[in-house]
Amino acid sequence: MVVQSMDDVSPSKWHLAHTTWFFETFVLEPFYPGYRCFNPAYAVLFNSYYNSVGDIYPRPDRGLLSRPTVAEVYDYREHVDAAVTVLMSRADQRTCGAIADVMTLGCHHEQQHQELILTDIKHVLSCNPLQPAYRANSEQVADVTASMGWARYEAGLVRIGAGAEGFAFDNERPRHRTYVAPFELAGRPVTNGEYIDFMEDGGYRQPGLWLSDGWNMIHERRCTMPLYWQLRDGVYHAHTLSGTRPVVRAEPVCHVSYYEADAFARWAEARLPTEAEWEIASEGATIGADLLETGALHPRPTRGGDTEPVAMLGNVWEWTSSPYTAYPGYKTAAGALGEYNGKFMSGQMVLRGGSCLTAATHIRSTYRNFFPPDARWQMTGLRLARDAR
Amino acid sequence: MVVQSMDDVSPSKWHLAHTTWFFETFVLEPFYPGYRCFNPAYAVLFNSYYNSVGDIYPRPDRGLLSRPTVAEVYDYREHVDAAVTVLMSRADQRTCGAIADVMTLGCHHEQQHQELILTDIKHVLSCNPLQPAYRANSEQVADVTASMGWARYEAGLVRIGAGAEGFAFDNERPRHRTYVAPFELAGRPVTNGEYIDFMEDGGYRQPGLWLSDGWNMIHERRCTMPLYWQLRDGVYHAHTLSGTRPVVRAEPVCHVSYYEADAFARWAEARLPTEAEWEIASEGATIGADLLETGALHPRPTRGGDTEPVAMLGNVWEWTSSPYTAYPGYKTAAGALGEYNGKFMSGQMVLRGGSCLTAATHIRSTYRNFFPPDARWQMTGLRLARDAR
Amino acid sequence: MVVQSMDDVSPSKWHLAHTTWFFETFVLEPFYPGYRCFNPAYAVLFNSYYNSVGDIYPRPDRGLLSRPTVAEVYDYREHVDAAVTVLMSRADQRTCGAIADVMTLGCHHEQQHQELILTDIKHVLSCNPLQPAYRANSEQVADVTASMGWARYEAGLVRIGAGAEGFAFDNERPRHRTYVAPFELAGRPVTNGEYIDFMEDGGYRQPGLWLSDGWNMIHERRCTMPLYWQLRDGVYHAHTLSGTRPVVRAEPVCHVSYYEADAFARWAEARLPTEAEWEIASEGATIGADLLETGALHPRPTRGGDTEPVAMLGNVWEWTSSPYTAYPGYKTAAGALGEYNGKFMSGQMVLRGGSCLTAATHIRSTYRNFFPPDARWQMTGLRLARDAR
Amino acid sequence: MVVQSMDDVSPSKWHLAHTTWFFETFVLEPFYPGYRCFNPAYAVLFNSYYNSVGDIYPRPDRGLLSRPTVAEVYDYREHVDAAVTVLMSRADQRTCGAIADVMTLGCHHEQQHQELILTDIKHVLSCNPLQPAYRANSEQVADVTASMGWARYEAGLVRIGAGAEGFAFDNERPRHRTYVAPFELAGRPVTNGEYIDFMEDGGYRQPGLWLSDGWNMIHERRCTMPLYWQLRDGVYHAHTLSGTRPVVRAEPVCHVSYYEADAFARWAEARLPTEAEWEIASEGATIGADLLETGALHPRPTRGGDTEPVAMLGNVWEWTSSPYTAYPGYKTAAGALGEYNGKFMSGQMVLRGGSCLTAATHIRSTYRNFFPPDARWQMTGLRLARDAR
Repeated sequence: MVVQSMDDVSPSKWHLAHTTWFFETFVLEPFYPGYRCFNPAYAVLFNSYYNSVGDIYPRPDRGLLSRPTVAEVYDYREHVDAAVTVLMSRADQRTCGAIADVMTLGCHHEQQHQELILTDIKHVLSCNPLQPAYRANSEQVADVTASMGWARYEAGLVRIGAGAEGFAFDNERPRHRTYVAPFELAGRPVTNGEYIDFMEDGGYRQPGLWLSDGWNMIHERRCTMPLYWQLRDGVYHAHTLSGTRPVVRAEPVCHVSYYEADAFARWAEARLPTEAEWEIASEGATIGADLLETGALHPRPTRGGDTEPVAMLGNVWEWTSSPYTAYPGYKTAAGALGEYNGKFMSGQMVLRGGSCLTAATHIRSTYRNFFPPDARWQMTGLRLARDAR
Repeated sequence: MVVQSMDDVSPSKWHLAHTTWFFETFVLEPFYPGYRCFNPAYAVLFNSYYNSVGDIYPRPDRGLLSRPTVAEVYDYREHVDAAVTVLMSRADQRTCGAIADVMTLGCHHEQQHQELILTDIKHVLSCNPLQPAYRANSEQVADVTASMGWARYEAGLVRIGAGAEGFAFDNERPRHRTYVAPFELAGRPVTNGEYIDFMEDGGYRQPGLWLSDGWNMIHERRCTMPLYWQLRDGVYHAHTLSGTRPVVRAEPVCHVSYYEADAFARWAEARLPTEAEWEIASEGATIGADLLETGALHPRPTRGGDTEPVAMLGNVWEWTSSPYTAYPGYKTAAGALGEYNGKFMSGQMVLRGGSCLTAATHIRSTYRNFFPPDARWQMTGLRLARDAR
Repeated sequence: MVVQSMDDVSPSKWHLAHTTWFFETFVLEPFYPGYRCFNPAYAVLFNSYYNSVGDIYPRPDRGLLSRPTVAEVYDYREHVDAAVTVLMSRADQRTCGAIADVMTLGCHHEQQHQELILTDIKHVLSCNPLQPAYRANSEQVADVTASMGWARYEAGLVRIGAGAEGFAFDNERPRHRTYVAPFELAGRPVTNGEYIDFMEDGGYRQPGLWLSDGWNMIHERRCTMPLYWQLRDGVYHAHTLSGTRPVVRAEPVCHVSYYEADAFARWAEARLPTEAEWEIASEGATIGADLLETGALHPRPTRGGDTEPVAMLGNVWEWTSSPYTAYPGYKTAAGALGEYNGKFMSGQMVLRGGSCLTAATHIRSTYRNFFPPDARWQMTGLRLARDAR
Repeated sequence: MVVQSMDDVSPSKWHLAHTTWFFETFVLEPFYPGYRCFNPAYAVLFNSYYNSVGDIYPRPDRGLLSRPTVAEVYDYREHVDAAVTVLMSRADQRTCGAIADVMTLGCHHEQQHQELILTDIKHVLSCNPLQPAYRANSEQVADVTASMGWARYEAGLVRIGAGAEGFAFDNERPRHRTYVAPFELAGRPVTNGEYIDFMEDGGYRQPGLWLSDGWNMIHERRCTMPLYWQLRDGVYHAHTLSGTRPVVRAEPVCHVSYYEADAFARWAEARLPTEAEWEIASEGATIGADLLETGALHPRPTRGGDTEPVAMLGNVWEWTSSPYTAYPGYKTAAGALGEYNGKFMSGQMVLRGGSCLTAATHIRSTYRNFFPPDARWQMTGLRLARDAR
């Protein structure tokens, strides 16, 4: 719970303390009169990126913290949980209303970190030559690849984004008009087998398939397959949260960067969908794929999507071709919480749909996740789209 | 003509040889039967980024080339110019047609490098403690700031992009529909004086104004003012192609990164325009501002734009809020020339309008320039936009 | 026990496993027929630098090992301890003789790592903004600086190095002749108070006092005082294994690099001793200063050395002016243990005398410690010397 | 004359200006009343490393100086030469005496830079894929390797270093006593053929032959042969100042680092000589090998040294096993010229004997050259030594 294997990864201990700090900082401090801070130094140590709140301990150094110990972090959590419980039980209706929004945000924030804890543990364990498993899994997956059809959508001036009701992050709002040309969307995500075909057709060696930044990345980091894959005696294996095992062709490919997703799509004579296309197609999607609650911890083969797209929610995050920018009319929240999403609107790409590590109550059709185009340690895959005539 | 002051900069000698190589590679080799290559090694040395054509000499090492000498590069140019002339005079009509497109592209390519030669020389000279001038200029500019109004545009489903006729780069096509909400656009670019107000109001010290990547950039590089500026005895000075001189408040600000432009706009309670907004507003714009032909080599104060935007073309490149991506339906050209624009469609922002270093025959309303958001050595400024009700 | 705060530092867990591995590799595997390796993967994970033995897990990545856990490492240790005990109890006299040398080396090796565990823990804790203590210490040290005399030594052809009898590392041998010009050696190490005088006289700002590499180092790393020092409200404080507390002027200065020791000596119009000078002067030295057994964990003020040098053994390691090279006639041991010392004979400086973290049975007059001239995290101080007429 | 191919290399233009600056700074400014500085900015631009004299332009940026031009540097030189001539012709006897030492030093300084200009040009041209020659040379060298004997030297208390008379650098003084054990020295330097034997015997793949820093260096930089060597169709070729040509086995090996020289010696069951051993053996050496005046610009095969060492002066610089440190009793000069040698006395190794690029009037038996152990772009080779019984 202490190790940080790269700058993007945080120790589990840090995630625990940070989500606790979030409630202490945004719920207890403003709303609990006389609240006594557990340890003032934590305000710096466990602030992730909120410049408005004060100093920030450097992210790449999170793995240097031998103190507080794991036990101390659990004490911290208990302290804050107890105080929040007291606050909630005592608060009058007016205060409750004011607190509710931040409490809700804090819970969604915690769900995000629950997913990150798993992706980060996966990365930490992958760096260990002993290749330990997080949790054993003896389930046998049937390696049967479902057929893939295309669903067609007509051109039109549509609305996307979250409406005013219910919880949504600020970056999903406002709901607004956008124009979409006719397109088709693949019925299911791309599989490992299809990705191996791309690899074996020389996909990583044809510059014409790649964005320039992607071509540079795969050469600098010597990428020739998805993250966590390796060849053992001619057989592709993948490091998973259940240990290292042969790659199952029928499973959705995951741990590919945007650059790899984009190159694959070009090789397949298709393209990635825009986030507007994805959102229109996903409206009313039922959750039929692996989410955190199934306990699979790895995406399993989906059924076929011949007439309509399946597995839009869950399974793997799907890269879109849309850079992460503000929706027209977007406003950040006032104060430090305004830093939650808005300031990251450059240099990242939108991902949609959640993964097998995402909680079911966390994901929705309008949800906009975002990561830099070279990120691979998240549960990231892709679904194809193409222009329609 | 030999020095390379940073990876982005190329020696003048290299620009000369590269634009020559472009004609040799894309015009002479395919179309001139029996053409004899001037020096086969140049195919590698002066290939900028066309992976399909062959090996590429590393960009950061262009400043290591003491050979070929400047004289040899001029010989190369003369050799290729002569061969092109012969080819053109001898070609039958059918060949002429085939050559015409590449010849036209070669000329526009050369115009791009003419601008780069100037921005690169400016950077090279700026690294020299002797601060030499490229060309002296004794003109006195009247430091009178014109008033700035706002032009209003209604919502609508509009068309942007270049039509099928005439020359345009592939990234300007196809002309397509997009929806634009009502907005207002500033009549003229932001001035140095306005930018100094931002600086003196603590603009570089307020994290709430900045994108996260921008905040990191200004701290890592210790930016507190535009590139090429310095404080001498309390007076802002700027290094220009005519030497170092006091900053003129009425001039458009230039040499700011996208991050700085974005932060300024937020400080000014406005935003940057999208490229669609910019293009709509610029349609039919007359060129009234400094372009290369005026010889100013530095943007001069513009007249006021009270009822309609002025200086849309020329003066300074204007950062838009649009990431550089493919237009719906975009297709790259076949072969190596397909690498010209398409593979750079990630991680960059669109700039519009040309600058005082751009040739008048090169710029147009649909022209999409693009640079990474941290680039500052180009002639980059900004114009404000805001939502309209 | 898991954190690695810089490349030079190893996690405590790693030190424990590595010293265990040493006995497994050099005692059990060659001498215990049928010995069953605890875990073959450990052969790579816990090999520090013995290329002849096989692959080596990268040193900078030791902090990435969340597995084996601390409990597993203790199991490993128990397993190896038990096997060694069995081996020793069963071995016949001839085998015992063969094993004895390696067992002795293994114990001295372990003593070295016991010191490193403490210096490494000190560094790890120093990186933590909470500045935790390793072990509290409420002892009050009397801040009384003893007077410092000089002892004189005549010129002569002398012998230094360890004789053939008794344990010594290979780098202390052979005992050999060397010529020493007349010199004087300071009676005691340099104190914090004297070092503060140097600092306050602008010692870190006068280039004439510094070796060129040292001048570069203090600028690159912004050194203005010893490692672990900081100014709080105008008072120098030092991070120690017992927490952060005000600097005691009478204590020997420690955590200075060779470059700082050398610059101080030049400022004091003296120089550092050569290792030959130091060794001659230390012959017959009685141990009167803090070694590991006193439990001080920090060097305490020494008594005065007016007529002969005191505190030659213990207290602080003393930088000499001698680069670490082979003695004339030096031979490395055969096999992997030949890598123990010999291959490090470049780019390092000799330190003599042990420190308050060194075991009493580990140190002796001929002992040659060595570290790069920029190393500061060891318990390194200095004693002055000067030419005599 | 403008390109800088790595931090250690300076443009020829810079060498010219720097040696000129040396006379301006150390001769004209102190001794020529009313001397008018050619350009005050040059004091910073062309100061190599004299902190006492003022600010220093960063060494790695010397290749960024497009100004002053080569023509301006020649003007500078002419200006300073003329002023020195006037000063010398007018100075009275007392001033002449005072100036003489600095003038002599300035000339020896210039000879050092003449050698560096050649090694630096060689490096610059080697980075160019066109592999241009500095000066063509059609001479055919007979590839006949002379036999190599060993000369024996008895143990004794000897004196080395320069005496008080005549010019010598401060680091060669004072002449002092040192004890030398009996040894043997090879009659001639190691040849390319012998070095190829080492390579083909797996010398670069046996860790037991290498110092730890050396093993790291050859892996980080992927060294498998001397600098400037390459394999073409199975034949070793070397880039020389006369272009690239097959390696001649009988020639002394050059462009090896100290680490490679040390590893070769260990492979050959010998060692490198100490500088004291080398100096004793070289006393009275006659210059029979290539120095700058022969114009060879590359070391040619030497005759055999069966009974006494040949080619001690000239041919290749010979690495010794001695770290570069101060002689006992060494004093730096007062003022800025005290920085000439003394501050570099850490982290470097002594080389002896000059090379084919060294002027004959510059080299002598006591001369101590020094470079870091990983330096390869100087004309550096080796001669073996071994202990005698």
